[in-house]
Amino acid sequence: MINIGIIGGSGYTGVELLRLLLPRDDVHVNFVSSRANAGTRVDAQFPSLRGFTDLNFSDPDQVSSGECDLVFFATPHGTAMKQAPALLNKGVKVVDLSADYRVKDVAEWEKWYKVKHTSPEWIEKAAYGLPETNRVAIADAMLVANPGCYPTSVQLGFMPLLENDLVHTDSLIADAKSGVTGAGRGASVATLLAEAGDNFKAYGVAGHRHLPEIEQGLRDMTSDAVSLTFTPHLLPVIRGIHSTLYARLKKPADLQAVFEERYKDEYFVDVLPAGVFPETRSVRGTNHCRLAVCQPQGRDTVVVMSVEDNLVKGAAGQAVQNMNLMLGLNERTGLAMPALMP
Amino acid sequence: MINIGIIGGSGYTGVELLRLLLPRDDVHVNFVSSRANAGTRVDAQFPSLRGFTDLNFSDPDQVSSGECDLVFFATPHGTAMKQAPALLNKGVKVVDLSADYRVKDVAEWEKWYKVKHTSPEWIEKAAYGLPETNRVAIADAMLVANPGCYPTSVQLGFMPLLENDLVHTDSLIADAKSGVTGAGRGASVATLLAEAGDNFKAYGVAGHRHLPEIEQGLRDMTSDAVSLTFTPHLLPVIRGIHSTLYARLKKPADLQAVFEERYKDEYFVDVLPAGVFPETRSVRGTNHCRLAVCQPQGRDTVVVMSVEDNLVKGAAGQAVQNMNLMLGLNERTGLAMPALMP
Amino acid sequence: MINIGIIGGSGYTGVELLRLLLPRDDVHVNFVSSRANAGTRVDAQFPSLRGFTDLNFSDPDQVSSGECDLVFFATPHGTAMKQAPALLNKGVKVVDLSADYRVKDVAEWEKWYKVKHTSPEWIEKAAYGLPETNRVAIADAMLVANPGCYPTSVQLGFMPLLENDLVHTDSLIADAKSGVTGAGRGASVATLLAEAGDNFKAYGVAGHRHLPEIEQGLRDMTSDAVSLTFTPHLLPVIRGIHSTLYARLKKPADLQAVFEERYKDEYFVDVLPAGVFPETRSVRGTNHCRLAVCQPQGRDTVVVMSVEDNLVKGAAGQAVQNMNLMLGLNERTGLAMPALMP
Amino acid sequence: MINIGIIGGSGYTGVELLRLLLPRDDVHVNFVSSRANAGTRVDAQFPSLRGFTDLNFSDPDQVSSGECDLVFFATPHGTAMKQAPALLNKGVKVVDLSADYRVKDVAEWEKWYKVKHTSPEWIEKAAYGLPETNRVAIADAMLVANPGCYPTSVQLGFMPLLENDLVHTDSLIADAKSGVTGAGRGASVATLLAEAGDNFKAYGVAGHRHLPEIEQGLRDMTSDAVSLTFTPHLLPVIRGIHSTLYARLKKPADLQAVFEERYKDEYFVDVLPAGVFPETRSVRGTNHCRLAVCQPQGRDTVVVMSVEDNLVKGAAGQAVQNMNLMLGLNERTGLAMPALMP
Repeated sequence: MINIGIIGGSGYTGVELLRLLLPRDDVHVNFVSSRANAGTRVDAQFPSLRGFTDLNFSDPDQVSSGECDLVFFATPHGTAMKQAPALLNKGVKVVDLSADYRVKDVAEWEKWYKVKHTSPEWIEKAAYGLPETNRVAIADAMLVANPGCYPTSVQLGFMPLLENDLVHTDSLIADAKSGVTGAGRGASVATLLAEAGDNFKAYGVAGHRHLPEIEQGLRDMTSDAVSLTFTPHLLPVIRGIHSTLYARLKKPADLQAVFEERYKDEYFVDVLPAGVFPETRSVRGTNHCRLAVCQPQGRDTVVVMSVEDNLVKGAAGQAVQNMNLMLGLNERTGLAMPALMP
Repeated sequence: MINIGIIGGSGYTGVELLRLLLPRDDVHVNFVSSRANAGTRVDAQFPSLRGFTDLNFSDPDQVSSGECDLVFFATPHGTAMKQAPALLNKGVKVVDLSADYRVKDVAEWEKWYKVKHTSPEWIEKAAYGLPETNRVAIADAMLVANPGCYPTSVQLGFMPLLENDLVHTDSLIADAKSGVTGAGRGASVATLLAEAGDNFKAYGVAGHRHLPEIEQGLRDMTSDAVSLTFTPHLLPVIRGIHSTLYARLKKPADLQAVFEERYKDEYFVDVLPAGVFPETRSVRGTNHCRLAVCQPQGRDTVVVMSVEDNLVKGAAGQAVQNMNLMLGLNERTGLAMPALMP
Repeated sequence: MINIGIIGGSGYTGVELLRLLLPRDDVHVNFVSSRANAGTRVDAQFPSLRGFTDLNFSDPDQVSSGECDLVFFATPHGTAMKQAPALLNKGVKVVDLSADYRVKDVAEWEKWYKVKHTSPEWIEKAAYGLPETNRVAIADAMLVANPGCYPTSVQLGFMPLLENDLVHTDSLIADAKSGVTGAGRGASVATLLAEAGDNFKAYGVAGHRHLPEIEQGLRDMTSDAVSLTFTPHLLPVIRGIHSTLYARLKKPADLQAVFEERYKDEYFVDVLPAGVFPETRSVRGTNHCRLAVCQPQGRDTVVVMSVEDNLVKGAAGQAVQNMNLMLGLNERTGLAMPALMP
Repeated sequence: MINIGIIGGSGYTGVELLRLLLPRDDVHVNFVSSRANAGTRVDAQFPSLRGFTDLNFSDPDQVSSGECDLVFFATPHGTAMKQAPALLNKGVKVVDLSADYRVKDVAEWEKWYKVKHTSPEWIEKAAYGLPETNRVAIADAMLVANPGCYPTSVQLGFMPLLENDLVHTDSLIADAKSGVTGAGRGASVATLLAEAGDNFKAYGVAGHRHLPEIEQGLRDMTSDAVSLTFTPHLLPVIRGIHSTLYARLKKPADLQAVFEERYKDEYFVDVLPAGVFPETRSVRGTNHCRLAVCQPQGRDTVVVMSVEDNLVKGAAGQAVQNMNLMLGLNERTGLAMPALMP
């Protein structure tokens, strides 16, 4: 039996981890912490879990993580960098769903997150948790930095193009659209149904924190200089990211074949048949990313469409995929299910 | 290995049966028929199933159901009554998700469905597939009439009150609200997003086909005369039924205790703690029905709230629950999963 | 030129008052106050008003309401009862959109709102602002208590039945469904799109603050004792209330004719043809209430359906209708527009 | 009194024309035709119009358009090209909301619309109905080709950049997102709430009929060669288009000033303050287009965001704006209203 702890369990990634882990026979969730809800039943906060757990939320200051094989941090940025090192030093593996260990350049990270990093020594040791490009390192790591939702979607979409040197990398564009759960479960006016419903807008156009993480990942795929214009938008849907990616081709290529070849062994990345485009609901609730590639009018701009569930492949599902790898399990364990459609 | 056939697989209950059955190790789906889509890949119609099946839709006239242990009819009314008898006579068990065998009074059925019943001899033999009140008969049946979505929700909500003779049954009210998948997957103006979205209305107030089925079920719970006012409404949600039930109390009772006692052994019916009311998303994608009972202001009108996913407990999930019973399996097999929330 | 002030202009009723008043040639909005936004442009908060006003939000402590002909209070309960009397004593007319002056029984009001009323002397002087039943008093009043959104919808629906002594009033039921703007514009988890979207639930079943207001109104329509079971639900729509009302008939009647007769001179109340049921979007953005009445199966339970836009006929529109009456204008001024549909 | 006819009045642009025209004192709608609904009341189809018209839909073969000053064609492509010439020859002015007269290159039009044009002689005489760039010609025209919804949004967004020779025009990108009313009111599976709700996808990536219209408009703004990658997406909202436009800068410029200068006299085009981005609901129900321009990270890719209501500025509102111009009225007549927000 694998013993698991979840620090920060009252947000959307927390409840999603529970949805994926509680039905498993090989995993036991030792604790779920939440400062705000300590002492109350988890299923009072999340009635969807009634019948699957009798846990109360724990006070994060009183959990004994040492008995866990692995601990997930489903906290805002700035928490894991303070609390993860003690666990790691005790030999507890950690998957951090926050941004704390994703960006290798500490100064860059501190500029975007406006806080001093308190455990920079762990940044280099952390494996970036995108299995499709970093599987071996993840399996060996004590600490995995689980990628952001947008970065997962954008990197998987650009990867075949950049790895095969097919496009100019100095003017990449990612027009990304995310459902509102990407903004978290905090009370806010901007994501009220009365504000975000029946509505659509861009945000963070001038600069979004996921930009340095994405550009770092893209740079690892090419020896050329990389410059990305990244425009996130807020979709009136609950779950789902759709990234529409644009790049100018350097040379002719059978793009469909390139994409199919790149992902032929990747269970969680599905390249659609030529001429078929993905929709976000086709991955609702699952860890799959679906991709399509197209060259409109045969001109020299290639368009890639990439969809994922931001809470699964973009957060909790990929975290479980990483957990599976770190613990020597089959990567698909607990994650092989069809999407909820309609 | 259990061999299963699905007749009428291109609608919402068809794809939902596939979502629930394809991941199972103990079940093999032999065929899925669809006249309109015969010869095309199932996962071209439903990309959410990519990776879970290589089946093509079969021509319904060319399937060999005889090799199946059980066949589901996920067809509009009027099909099963013609085709099921041949299967039954070959010894193939049948779960009919349509209305063909639900109403015991043939004349009443024919009045509401405006068609002559072609196999009335099977109506009496059919077990009504509401396990919470008819489990033994279902387990023994060759043919199960899977209840309608509204009838499941309303019967489970009224059951403790009527069985315990607590309310006047001559003026029952069911104010029911259903998501749009209840209307099926046919092209229609009324259920376009541009028409049904950001909107709410009642429909079928003067008379809905589920009324005779519900009243039949309620009559089985009491020796008193039953009269129900049933008002269905169209909710701008994809899945989910919320029935708000009203009845006048005959005598004082600890209603919370009555409900908890009635369902204490029912895995798929969850009575919420006093003062907590159910929401449809708490059962999204699952076979659970959640109930709450309340006596506002201590007056003599009792209010029951009942939620279910109309495609699961209201259709495909209950059909699988019935299949499990008919085949001697644990009732919960393949159905024990938390809801997708948010 | 009519001079108008709005106290509490940063919520949904505030912006709705501006939408209705700013395009008018006969009205000038002198100020819009908002403590939280004082000093910032109104159209920065509400870009929909760009081009229609250059106003900044005023500090509520620094507005000179005395120059106004009429002031609207679009504040939470507890504000108008403190600030309105000073205005009234200066001769400024007031329409209070909050609950402060709606309930004539002070003790009852204080029980539900859990606060001591500070100007009970004005409660009796206030006219209840439902023009369809109180038009003369409104026209003469200095202070109008604008009805709540649910109370408007429920009273207009029951009115023909009670005034004509057609139903038993001891077991009335109002199953009401409201869009999320009814909950206001405050940040809250419960009305996030990720929580309230694709979802439906009842709330306040055990007791909602609108109950005493509704029962007071119903009592004025009959000499019999009145008891109402009122169940509000949260709809995943932005605007709109749909009330489904149930009552047991005392005697046969041509219900359609009764309704048409009652409202034949009411511009803002529209009785639909027999057999047609209203939908919330048919009144989106307008001051109309649409009604239908039905007697299912010819049994003795009558069903009334009543729709309104909770922000218009349920709040700001009715407030403007009352303003028009109080200032001797045609009641329809600025309010005669078709709904935004789709 | 201006006499107006509407041919094809049962779709979304038809009802939207009625919403805008019926409340006007200076306009009389003589007829609204609809083959499918001939003889039935218009307000039975569109209850939002109850109280605003007593018209029945006319049989299109029996209307006498000759008595009209102007006739709108709110029909699918292929109708106006057959019926408009007869009207024009009688001296009746025509605004065609369909695509029939938008594209000057007949061969190109026939390639995309897969039909032979039956009145090519009128294509050259038709004025392209984008007042912001073609106002004088519109005022003089007998026939106006009302622009498509996407083309309006994209052209208004690119116009300041191309007219001022600020960007490379050989690699323009328009990532456009439209609400479902853009797909019309026909019954279809793809735009059911159960399919398009809580979902997002691209469509027509390989080639959309609006591409030649947009490229034609862009070519008129520059002497350089134009190549546009145009990716439309389906938004789960009812109304609204958000176009996110990308271009590579040729030289430094004060982009905010360029946009403000270009549109300083355009009532219906609103350039937002620097750093503020538009949302679709800010123009819901109105004829305004709101724009923002941004240069992320100071790099050489410029991003323009453009929102409009696809049924108003993208269809019926712009048609009325054109009607106003053609009849010598103030362009804003009947169109100056704040958006419905929330």
